[in-house]
Amino acid sequence: MARKLESNPALVPFGRHVAALRKQMNPPLSQEDLSGLCELDRTYISGIENGKRNVSLTNIFRLARALGVEPKDLLDYPSAGEP
Amino acid sequence: MARKLESNPALVPFGRHVAALRKQMNPPLSQEDLSGLCELDRTYISGIENGKRNVSLTNIFRLARALGVEPKDLLDYPSAGEP
Repeated sequence: MARKLESNPALVPFGRHVAALRKQMNPPLSQEDLSGLCELDRTYISGIENGKRNVSLTNIFRLARALGVEPKDLLDYPSAGEP
Repeated sequence: MARKLESNPALVPFGRHVAALRKQMNPPLSQEDLSGLCELDRTYISGIENGKRNVSLTNIFRLARALGVEPKDLLDYPSAGEP
């Protein structure tokens, strides 16, 4: 049985920011759409948005390209990096 | 024997940026200093700076705190995210 992932408080705001960027697209993207664009599994996208996945730098680059933003914009949100 | 790490072209510019930020500190930090500040092994820091480590988001946060910058500043360099 797959290990149940716990959300990491330091990652939750990042996840919310990714979800907000996804929904602000025109037209808004579903997690499935984003998953296809950045070739990451939809459940992995869901895990990122719920603060349960400690995403790697290359996957940050993939997300940024798919969302049409600069990588630094993905980390541009209040409380970024606070423990 | 430890697997020899290859550098990832997408990670090399990030590594150079981290090394530049480290050396711009006042006083400049050694890799050993930075390693102590963010509680990451010195060889891991060296691997990051040589584009051989696909650093995770929580470690990006650690590096940013240790270098006294915002996480988004760590991704603010030319060609960030280009394949």
